[in-house]
Amino acid sequence: MNIKLAFDIYGTIINTSGIKDVLKNHTGSKTKDFIGLWRTKQLEYSFRRAAMDLYVNFDTVTDQALQFTCDELDVSLNEYQRAQIIDSYRSLPKFDDTDDSLQNLKNKGFSINAFSNGSMQSLKALFKNNSLDKIFEKSISLENKQVFKPSRSAYYYLLNELNAEAQEVCLISGNPFDIIGAANCGIKTIWLNRKASTFDPWEIKPDYTVKSLNEIIKVLGQE
Amino acid sequence: MNIKLAFDIYGTIINTSGIKDVLKNHTGSKTKDFIGLWRTKQLEYSFRRAAMDLYVNFDTVTDQALQFTCDELDVSLNEYQRAQIIDSYRSLPKFDDTDDSLQNLKNKGFSINAFSNGSMQSLKALFKNNSLDKIFEKSISLENKQVFKPSRSAYYYLLNELNAEAQEVCLISGNPFDIIGAANCGIKTIWLNRKASTFDPWEIKPDYTVKSLNEIIKVLGQE
Repeated sequence: MNIKLAFDIYGTIINTSGIKDVLKNHTGSKTKDFIGLWRTKQLEYSFRRAAMDLYVNFDTVTDQALQFTCDELDVSLNEYQRAQIIDSYRSLPKFDDTDDSLQNLKNKGFSINAFSNGSMQSLKALFKNNSLDKIFEKSISLENKQVFKPSRSAYYYLLNELNAEAQEVCLISGNPFDIIGAANCGIKTIWLNRKASTFDPWEIKPDYTVKSLNEIIKVLGQE
Repeated sequence: MNIKLAFDIYGTIINTSGIKDVLKNHTGSKTKDFIGLWRTKQLEYSFRRAAMDLYVNFDTVTDQALQFTCDELDVSLNEYQRAQIIDSYRSLPKFDDTDDSLQNLKNKGFSINAFSNGSMQSLKALFKNNSLDKIFEKSISLENKQVFKPSRSAYYYLLNELNAEAQEVCLISGNPFDIIGAANCGIKTIWLNRKASTFDPWEIKPDYTVKSLNEIIKVLGQE
């Protein structure tokens, strides 16, 4: 039971689709496409910046991806609307299975940690708005290391912050790129596949796949 | 007139949409979505592998992106069909403005070079099938360096192969990620924007923007 758990936040604990209600007011019938393209570009920009060794704060990545999406889908936002949307990104809701599953894991003695590309300020706001500010032992923001997942240095930073070897850490993420990135550094992985998504057909697979956070405790019992 | 020109290949000289006719037989009404997702995933995989420092041949990237697209869009291909599609990727057509513009630049004394993520084998096949095998002074494949654009080491490899300083080289690319990657290393850039696309709203812009390869000669005349 020495395994330390690191939870990805956006797309794993926090539901990025939760921005829908705010966007609907500004993007109408384009809302679904808008959310999809914004998230896709946000990730693409973080991958490219990781490859380019050209860091900016993740809030800037999110904002530039929003600008691209507006330009591409011909949506016009004034400064106030834009600020309102970015602000809503800091009060996105958690997934329904979060509270019980994290508490159960904590009760079983697991060390529960957050590990995210997100800026420390945004993570703090998200946790506060979702009453998650007491649950994590450590909140590890890659802002402090100035890198993005899935670069190797992101996962080495995680190990360093947890003071652990790769085989003592298990990453739980809903994002296949994160699972592959962590596994690439020897870290154990659990892919949270909530929506029967397609995993990338690379040469690297998750150690376990679960459909909800509640299943993690069963999986870890097998270790 | 000492500037050495480096041309991106896929999406700049070679039209990746040219795969349409082959795909139509297998993907029917899904063809447009299929091509879009395949290309998007191909690029995403190359960005992620660059960030992860986990190189595989670009043909493998293309093949894995094809597999993902089939899984995601529920398209079933047998081994023969798959081989046929991958083979067609090596005989994609060039854009119409290629021959005249490259020849004109060569006549003006510019050094014309190819610079691509593509494997050497695929580039050779593409150039042969498009009668482009005599036009480039050098065909620089990142397969030899085992990195992908837009990592810095990709562009440093280009400079090394051209035996030139950054300010003596101009990259011409249809791909904004490539323009930003090159500019990030101090290389001059011309963005070839054939279809009035959206450029990423980052802090880095191309030095020039043109609508066809024919305009490059005018732009370089201003230097």
